[in-house]
Order: sequence, then structure tokens, then C-alpha cells
Amino acid sequence: MEKGELVFDGNEKQIFATGEPDKVIIRYKDVGTAFNNIKRAVFHGKGVLNNAISTITFEALRDAGIKVHFIESISDREQLCLKLEPVPIQVTCRNRIAGSLARILGVEEGLKPQGCILDLRYNNDDLGDPVINDDQAVALSLVTAEELRHIKSVACKSNEVLTELFGRAGIELVDFKMEFGRNAEGELIIADELSPDNCRLWDARTGEKMDKDRFRLDLGNVTGSYAEVLDRLKKTKR
Amino acid sequence: MEKGELVFDGNEKQIFATGEPDKVIIRYKDVGTAFNNIKRAVFHGKGVLNNAISTITFEALRDAGIKVHFIESISDREQLCLKLEPVPIQVTCRNRIAGSLARILGVEEGLKPQGCILDLRYNNDDLGDPVINDDQAVALSLVTAEELRHIKSVACKSNEVLTELFGRAGIELVDFKMEFGRNAEGELIIADELSPDNCRLWDARTGEKMDKDRFRLDLGNVTGSYAEVLDRLKKTKR
Repeated sequence: MEKGELVFDGNEKQIFATGEPDKVIIRYKDVGTAFNNIKRAVFHGKGVLNNAISTITFEALRDAGIKVHFIESISDREQLCLKLEPVPIQVTCRNRIAGSLARILGVEEGLKPQGCILDLRYNNDDLGDPVINDDQAVALSLVTAEELRHIKSVACKSNEVLTELFGRAGIELVDFKMEFGRNAEGELIIADELSPDNCRLWDARTGEKMDKDRFRLDLGNVTGSYAEVLDRLKKTKR
Repeated sequence: MEKGELVFDGNEKQIFATGEPDKVIIRYKDVGTAFNNIKRAVFHGKGVLNNAISTITFEALRDAGIKVHFIESISDREQLCLKLEPVPIQVTCRNRIAGSLARILGVEEGLKPQGCILDLRYNNDDLGDPVINDDQAVALSLVTAEELRHIKSVACKSNEVLTELFGRAGIELVDFKMEFGRNAEGELIIADELSPDNCRLWDARTGEKMDKDRFRLDLGNVTGSYAEVLDRLKKTKR
């Protein structure tokens, strides 16, 4: 696949055009950002690890019949993906209350609700990605009520698939953030990535954090933990 | 009704015990607070006005078959009410996007969604009343999913009744905040007050603010506007 011009240069990923109008190449950078881009650092090799991990997670979803933008990994840090019109919503699926939400709600990190919690944010850097609810998302015409029901159903099914995938690798999927896009037919398809950058992953035995919280909270060994996640996922595939 | 000991001394209201275990006396103060109690001022006569306005709004809801804690006004600033166990949730019903939400979402104040928007906050001063969504409210055991459905249905019905009530007085109900409590049988009943302190009210013709935003935004004539709201409501009753 011919790599065309750079069409988007994000914090952690770049998007390139291809010879086909409905496909793009996504390149994973080694940059890590947190707190809406206030904290930044370079982690050599992170892009390669996230490309590899995201390939496994997207393949697992696709195998379960869930539509994802991922087509194939084409180099150590590049994926061929469907070109989508972004839906400006971040959907977080939580099996435990962790991170900033635990502080906001005044509960201990790790609190396990009965079902999973779905949260929405309006994906808008200028506004700081504010928390929104279903009514607000529909009122702002970010999605229709029917699209939102579909997105939630896909998020719940994806949660089951990924919980099982990471579980087999001795890793608990605590929460993860999904983004969606629309193809030319208006179909909703999972976009972005699904890696330790946007999944909270705890060692199932020790509870040790194996995700971007190591960067957010200055716990060290960021790349080492991502490599451990990849290594365990690969072992379960054999 | 015998007035017993002071059982709660809030910013804007006090609650007194009565001779009957299931009833309390609520006394409306002249204090105004905003921004989670950061801004405070005394408005002489505000308590009397809010008692009178809240009497009219609660009577309108009760006449429409909606359960409210209000029993009767027993003095110029006191109401006899049902004693309830508070549900720690604030429900805001919005016919237009106004106030802080307009800033947060980056839209012009006054934007009218197709239907009404319902927002939830966790009523917790220490946490600054954080915004929560349905899943979070249920996960924190603040309400059950079924109770939340009931609360939303009551909020929508109350919105219709109050929109009509204020509309007849030439006032647009832009949004309002409701609180609920449970009686001994676990029934959910509307509590707190429904006055210009927690309803956004705009003059239907000029769009002029006639509510607590006059205090929040330093627009002046706070008590005068509340008096105008009461005066117009009284005229429509004749």
C-alpha cells in the first residue's frame, strides 16, 4: 500500500493518506501524553509496542464480529486502517472505578460496580474533553439516540471480549476508552487504538499497574510494563 | 403545629422538628449562596418570596398528581413538609442550555435541544457536587436503576407542569434543579424548593433573567426580580 501525505499529526499517532480513498495508514509514535497534553515524554519503543498490542486487541474484536477500523499491521509501527469520519465522543467502559473518577466520586480506587459503567466525554481539546451525558450528546448532535444505543451495545460486547483476552494473559481489564468513526455508509466502527495507553490494565495477581498510569503517576518502567503486556498476550496466542 | 428543635441549619434553609415524627418545618432564610457557597450575600425578604413562590410551584405539582414534600405554608417564611430521607442526587431538567453548562459545552447560552436534557449531580459538598451519569449513580448505590427511571419520569412530568405554570405568567422555565427524598415506605417524593433560587426563569418577551443568575452574574435587582416572579404567578391565579 502506497503511503501518501501526512493528513493528521496527533500527539501519539500520525495519519497518512493512501492510494485508496477509504483507507489510511496510522503510525504509532513514541510520545506519551497525559492530563490533556500537559504532561509529555518520549518512551523509545512505545509506538512499536502499542502497534503490536493494538493489533492483537483489534483482531480479537474483529474475530468476535465487532467492526473495527484496523485492517492489518504493515510495519513495526504502522497499521492500515479504514478511513472514518470521527464521532467526537470518547466512551469509557469501567469494570472498576479507578483514576480521576475515583477521586471525583470520593471512592477508593478499585471499587467494583455490579455491572460495568459507561461514561461519555465530548472529544474537544479546546474544551478539555468535558464529561457529558447521553441527553447532552444527542442535544449537541454528536450522535443520535439510536447511534448511542448501538455504541453502548458495542462497548459492552467489546468489554466482554477484551476482558476475556487480557484475563487469559493474567491481566485484569479495569477500564478502557473507545472512539468511534463513521464510514461512507454511516456505519459506526471502532477507531483509535486499544493499548495500555487507553486501557487500564492491572496484573491479575498483584494488582500492579501495567498501563499509562505508570506515566501519569510517575511509577516508572512504562515501556517495560507495556512490553510485559505484549509478551503475555503473545504467549496466550501460542 | 408545634415547632421543635433545629435539626439542620443549611445555607439558605433551616429544618425544625415538629411534634409528629414524619413532619418537619422548613424555614426560608434571606441568605443567597452561589458557586458551591463561595459567593454569599443577604437579600432581605428573599426567604419570604421563595416560601411564597415555592408554595405555588409545589401546589401546581401536587394538583397534577405529583408527590411533593410540601404540606402547607404556615407562616411568611415557613412551610410544613414531610420528613424524608434525602436521596443524594440533584436532577437538573433543561429546556435550554444555560449557565455553566453552556460554557462547558462551548455553546451559546440559550441553545434549545429537541427534547429536554436531564443532568445528574452527586449531592456532596465535600466533593463539590460532581456531575455523574446514570451508571455511576447506580454503582454508588445512590439510587437503583428503577428509582432513577422513576425520578426521570417525575422530572419530565414536573417540567411540563412548571413550564405551563410559568408560561401563563409570561416567564420561560429555562431549567430547574430538583431533589428527592424517600418516606418511611421508600416512596420517592420531590423535596427542597422550586423557586428562582433553583429555577432559571427568563422573561418570555425580553429574555431578561429573573432568577439567581442575577446574583451569580452581579446583575443587581435580585429581590426585585423574585418579587416580580411572585407577582406574576399570583396574577395568573386570579
